[in-house]
Amino acid sequence: MKKKVVLAYSGGLDTSVAVKWFIDKGYEVIACCLDVGEGKDLNFIKEKALDMGAAKSYMIDAKEEFAHEYVLPALQAHAMYENKYPLVSALSRPLIAKKLVEVAEEENADAVAHGCTGKGNDQVRFEVSIKALNPHLEVLAPVRDWSWSREEEIEYAKEKGVPIPIDLDSPYSIDQNLWGRSNECGILEDPWAAPPEDAYDLTAALEDTPDQPDVIEIEFEKGLPVAVDGKQYKLSDLILHLNTVAGKHGVGRIDHVENRLVGIKSREVYECPGAMTLLTAHKELEDLTLVKDIGHFKPVISKKLTEMIYEGLWFSPLTPALESFLQETQQYVNGTVRVKLFKGHAIVEGRKSPNSLYDEKLATYTKEDEFDQSASVGFIKLWGLPTEVHSTVNKKESVKQ
Amino acid sequence: MKKKVVLAYSGGLDTSVAVKWFIDKGYEVIACCLDVGEGKDLNFIKEKALDMGAAKSYMIDAKEEFAHEYVLPALQAHAMYENKYPLVSALSRPLIAKKLVEVAEEENADAVAHGCTGKGNDQVRFEVSIKALNPHLEVLAPVRDWSWSREEEIEYAKEKGVPIPIDLDSPYSIDQNLWGRSNECGILEDPWAAPPEDAYDLTAALEDTPDQPDVIEIEFEKGLPVAVDGKQYKLSDLILHLNTVAGKHGVGRIDHVENRLVGIKSREVYECPGAMTLLTAHKELEDLTLVKDIGHFKPVISKKLTEMIYEGLWFSPLTPALESFLQETQQYVNGTVRVKLFKGHAIVEGRKSPNSLYDEKLATYTKEDEFDQSASVGFIKLWGLPTEVHSTVNKKESVKQ
Amino acid sequence: MKKKVVLAYSGGLDTSVAVKWFIDKGYEVIACCLDVGEGKDLNFIKEKALDMGAAKSYMIDAKEEFAHEYVLPALQAHAMYENKYPLVSALSRPLIAKKLVEVAEEENADAVAHGCTGKGNDQVRFEVSIKALNPHLEVLAPVRDWSWSREEEIEYAKEKGVPIPIDLDSPYSIDQNLWGRSNECGILEDPWAAPPEDAYDLTAALEDTPDQPDVIEIEFEKGLPVAVDGKQYKLSDLILHLNTVAGKHGVGRIDHVENRLVGIKSREVYECPGAMTLLTAHKELEDLTLVKDIGHFKPVISKKLTEMIYEGLWFSPLTPALESFLQETQQYVNGTVRVKLFKGHAIVEGRKSPNSLYDEKLATYTKEDEFDQSASVGFIKLWGLPTEVHSTVNKKESVKQ
Amino acid sequence: MKKKVVLAYSGGLDTSVAVKWFIDKGYEVIACCLDVGEGKDLNFIKEKALDMGAAKSYMIDAKEEFAHEYVLPALQAHAMYENKYPLVSALSRPLIAKKLVEVAEEENADAVAHGCTGKGNDQVRFEVSIKALNPHLEVLAPVRDWSWSREEEIEYAKEKGVPIPIDLDSPYSIDQNLWGRSNECGILEDPWAAPPEDAYDLTAALEDTPDQPDVIEIEFEKGLPVAVDGKQYKLSDLILHLNTVAGKHGVGRIDHVENRLVGIKSREVYECPGAMTLLTAHKELEDLTLVKDIGHFKPVISKKLTEMIYEGLWFSPLTPALESFLQETQQYVNGTVRVKLFKGHAIVEGRKSPNSLYDEKLATYTKEDEFDQSASVGFIKLWGLPTEVHSTVNKKESVKQ
Repeated sequence: MKKKVVLAYSGGLDTSVAVKWFIDKGYEVIACCLDVGEGKDLNFIKEKALDMGAAKSYMIDAKEEFAHEYVLPALQAHAMYENKYPLVSALSRPLIAKKLVEVAEEENADAVAHGCTGKGNDQVRFEVSIKALNPHLEVLAPVRDWSWSREEEIEYAKEKGVPIPIDLDSPYSIDQNLWGRSNECGILEDPWAAPPEDAYDLTAALEDTPDQPDVIEIEFEKGLPVAVDGKQYKLSDLILHLNTVAGKHGVGRIDHVENRLVGIKSREVYECPGAMTLLTAHKELEDLTLVKDIGHFKPVISKKLTEMIYEGLWFSPLTPALESFLQETQQYVNGTVRVKLFKGHAIVEGRKSPNSLYDEKLATYTKEDEFDQSASVGFIKLWGLPTEVHSTVNKKESVKQ
Repeated sequence: MKKKVVLAYSGGLDTSVAVKWFIDKGYEVIACCLDVGEGKDLNFIKEKALDMGAAKSYMIDAKEEFAHEYVLPALQAHAMYENKYPLVSALSRPLIAKKLVEVAEEENADAVAHGCTGKGNDQVRFEVSIKALNPHLEVLAPVRDWSWSREEEIEYAKEKGVPIPIDLDSPYSIDQNLWGRSNECGILEDPWAAPPEDAYDLTAALEDTPDQPDVIEIEFEKGLPVAVDGKQYKLSDLILHLNTVAGKHGVGRIDHVENRLVGIKSREVYECPGAMTLLTAHKELEDLTLVKDIGHFKPVISKKLTEMIYEGLWFSPLTPALESFLQETQQYVNGTVRVKLFKGHAIVEGRKSPNSLYDEKLATYTKEDEFDQSASVGFIKLWGLPTEVHSTVNKKESVKQ
Repeated sequence: MKKKVVLAYSGGLDTSVAVKWFIDKGYEVIACCLDVGEGKDLNFIKEKALDMGAAKSYMIDAKEEFAHEYVLPALQAHAMYENKYPLVSALSRPLIAKKLVEVAEEENADAVAHGCTGKGNDQVRFEVSIKALNPHLEVLAPVRDWSWSREEEIEYAKEKGVPIPIDLDSPYSIDQNLWGRSNECGILEDPWAAPPEDAYDLTAALEDTPDQPDVIEIEFEKGLPVAVDGKQYKLSDLILHLNTVAGKHGVGRIDHVENRLVGIKSREVYECPGAMTLLTAHKELEDLTLVKDIGHFKPVISKKLTEMIYEGLWFSPLTPALESFLQETQQYVNGTVRVKLFKGHAIVEGRKSPNSLYDEKLATYTKEDEFDQSASVGFIKLWGLPTEVHSTVNKKESVKQ
Repeated sequence: MKKKVVLAYSGGLDTSVAVKWFIDKGYEVIACCLDVGEGKDLNFIKEKALDMGAAKSYMIDAKEEFAHEYVLPALQAHAMYENKYPLVSALSRPLIAKKLVEVAEEENADAVAHGCTGKGNDQVRFEVSIKALNPHLEVLAPVRDWSWSREEEIEYAKEKGVPIPIDLDSPYSIDQNLWGRSNECGILEDPWAAPPEDAYDLTAALEDTPDQPDVIEIEFEKGLPVAVDGKQYKLSDLILHLNTVAGKHGVGRIDHVENRLVGIKSREVYECPGAMTLLTAHKELEDLTLVKDIGHFKPVISKKLTEMIYEGLWFSPLTPALESFLQETQQYVNGTVRVKLFKGHAIVEGRKSPNSLYDEKLATYTKEDEFDQSASVGFIKLWGLPTEVHSTVNKKESVKQ
């Protein structure tokens, strides 16, 4: 009996060749494509898989699940790998792995396959996730295994009747979902070279942005963005809407020399207009509503969660523990943030909240002041006492009396 | 015999009144003013102190000491309080305290005085620093002690012949040095209100910035910026130069609802054109030259150092220990960063270094690739093993075999 | 109308004098004593308060609430301040504050009072907790306010008919609950002096411990100790039982020079036989059942929670967020730990669990080995790659080729 | 021409077989054995290597270098992996790697080899260290490569004339240096089983320890232990001396289920009498002499350094940065610690220092008290202010006014 493999299918050359290759190896191939908000019509992909010879082809709309279960925790954590990259692809990989495993279990498949090469992070994210979800499934990585040169792959493709894409000459390697778009390879491999304009797609060049800002108001409920300018959106739509609005103003371009999990540095270019707008707005609302203790410790949680996601460990039991921490803090993150989108910036101009801890009566320097300034004397005395004792003991000689 | 007090004198209303007040109380007043790069002529201040009745008046040019001993570690740490504020005033306070103590020791003074009120961070920074440097000196805070209303202070000033400043109606409270400018009070006390244009001074409004970028190259040696566009500067001059160049393009406006050390939230507006340009450039050079271990751990050091500085603990013995860590890492931070200043952005477009750890032969997806992709198989297996074992043990029932 | 104050009453000299003193000041006093497991009869205290003139006297058995809501999170966090002190008094203070506030609200009292002096941590814990629970209640600290010498206090007591305790000469200041006993003052104030035997009460001296060990088995369910040697206990009883059993073997003596929140170092002696036994056993069960990611990150959470508790911030909203993290991890902490109590040690000799992640087939060096040793080659290659690239770049000259 | 390999030679079966195996493969073998304080005569090993056919045999006394360059930072960091294991083998591996590379460079060897299997940590430590020190050297791991069963290895040994050790039946796998002794395998692979007495060698069983304690005084200079009971020792001798003295009292037995780097849990038994005595004493002296800021942050550094060492990253550039931090703190760690060695305990009974920050005049509750208790009022007010504001805002309904 034929072995069955569920293949993460993107419609591109690599995974199309993989369908043929698996069939050659005697597998029955079930193609599986996810819509995580790339913003293009994916139905042709479902068909193409069948054309390639797949026995079955799935197209799963996972946008809202992706937004709520994967993107939202990253937003609430202000997850930015190396303080720069909002984890675009890293977030979608565990969800894709989950869907592949679900399909494999339903179809009684023997193996699950992805189209990653052997030097990126995504192979790790896929394989660790799949093993965590079902250790009994075999994981296959045909592209990594066959290790063909580009030429060899094209020759095989031609021979097997796999259509060669018209943009084959594009030097870039791109991944996209509703949280953003990543781009690498080609000229980007030179970290001294500025990314050319054709490396970008979601965002306008600063030179081409409108000379009038858009000022929008984003409303949050328990850390979840629920409305823009008074209009309610479901989360995936809200993000896609902001991609358009903020993208027009050139918000969210990121150029990053980053440390991959597999031990090398790579140069990546990201576009995250919606993500950067929401991350900025959410952080500002937290600055208003979270007590200092949380404000100063939450980054420790965020950094760890960010690393877990980047490093393919979404399904480690540490992840839900970190999320529990986050969730407990988000109950206070209610309110509205006014954001000016202009010339590549998402500038928070105002923020207000029923949970605001900003107390004008304590903060003001006007006569409304209710702060007890005399308390500072005692506070400073004890705050500085350890340093003072240290000096008294250890600087005996150097201090003039 | 008269008691002697060394007063941190700014030339403003508060400290001018304080001179008179101390004289009334029977003190001999020694005024002490520091130039830490506010960018205005401070010689008139020296004179004014004498006019007010000070027995002696010091004007100390501390710009280069400030740049090297205080600003540079903050730059190398990427010190940003609450990920937003590059510690403008917080950095100058310990240096001013140090100079006050030095003058007090030289003059055999009994006390040192500052002009802070009782609800800000600066009182803490001054007093803890002074006590650390010389626990035997008394620290006086006349403005906090007299707790007059504005009207009472003005009445006293008029009575004593202290000139009333013409900008008395200015609602803002401002502090400035070469690392930036801070502003609070007035309309800024409403966190929903956008800061009006008159709150800013060092930076152009986005609407008024040039339509042509400036592209500059900043050269670093062991983490120290030494040249811009091939021209060598001493550090204080380099920063002031960048304040001008980047300020023209509107770089470095920050609007922050922050947690003060004394337990309240306040809303502050900062302008740091040179600082933000250098912080961005330095971080990018580190991304290229520091090994991942350091890149991922250094932020822990930075966060602590940032808090120490913000919270007035510069002279705690923890500070030099944190700095030792930093210094050890900076030996690799050599190279050049190309920055495009445009529409409020300092965009790093390219970075290069003799210590670059970016290895194109390992990173490339071209046929030059030297990365051993087969190593990934074993790596992923062990990397994911704990999660896999966890699933095998704890998800026995839920996993379909 | 008289003002009402709810006083945390211990039956000792200080709070007895405080009853009189409040009455003198025109207050109606409501005494409130909590049983948090000191292990002595507290009913006489209820009566004594009335004898002193209190209008009303509460005796609240809070042992089980204390055990579950305060001690259990500390156990599960392995909370040890400065890696030594398991937070005995620090844990009971917020609970006492909560009960005081509840009584005050029920009795429509105006104020709440505690008997702490002005140099310890407990005043902070009480006052911050009370303010957090009800910012409208006044907090009074009579002992701190009257600042009498010992002699003055005794004179006042005699005058007012407060009985002078027979152990007045005891140099020690003691606090005790089911999680342990703390002791300070007297000869203990000399950190070079060994604590004399009379400083201890819950634990036998090593010299006097039995020459036969007791070996016990402690059973945990989701991180909660539920049974000892097969016998179920409610938590407070289980801890008290272990205090007896482990105390007999001299387990849990701690001698600590610690950093108080108010800026000084103090020397404290603690006895925590039950606590140290449970902390040791629980940690060992976690070592068996928690995945490495959690095992290595949980100490970060624990350290923060420990500091929050020590520093009086139990009712900060950060605390429940930290607890959420903990709770999520405890679902795996099921099983049995075998502990040998002997000569001051609680030695874990064996641990077993249905959630054990120790996999003998992976760990063994016998022929049962299922670990894929060949995977290590690839793992090591990528694990060491950043360091290798760093050396290649930065040690060009020093390396012999 | 023959290829040359420098082999880390221990004199045991595995590496003796490896000599033969390399010769069979056509290598010239240079054996290299290090004395890192195992406490036995190692000269016979040098001879044995030659007997086995090695072309050359090195015996290097590295005890003092090991003590100063590797053990001392671990002592000063209080490095305890997973809060239990003082990094015995993990510390010696980088030094052995360094010596192998030095010999290889001197001998113009092509490769370096170690005798580790493929499932432990040591293979990682060796290989990452060697690659860091000289990326051009090939690293060979014959035992991992040949993957023989025990029987196959013995057969090969017999055939090649390698003497079969008389303790071949010993179930244990042991490594030892001056910082301690590690033991694994055999019955220890069952985490529910108590380690049998024959698993231990350096420490007496509690049942067999003397009924009279030894009380010793250890003197530290800048964090370095320099004398015991007034007698100066060089560091390696001091540690070996304490191994004897503390071992007699049963100090330093550790039973640990630990997370290996390669993804599995293993159960290890350690004996570290000298290490545990010094770690305890050093920590107590730090508690007396380090300011709270350092005391509370240093554990973050220590945890990272511990993980770096355990995980084979000694030669990462992060390590010297962490050490720089440590070194800066150790200038204050001067003084004497009195330790009672008794019944498995190293109990610090007293500590004194010229840098002591314990100030009896501030700490005392006698009339000598110089602490300003009134300062506490203001301190508490501001310390609790964020929590109070949070409650006022967020608990409006629940709080009774």
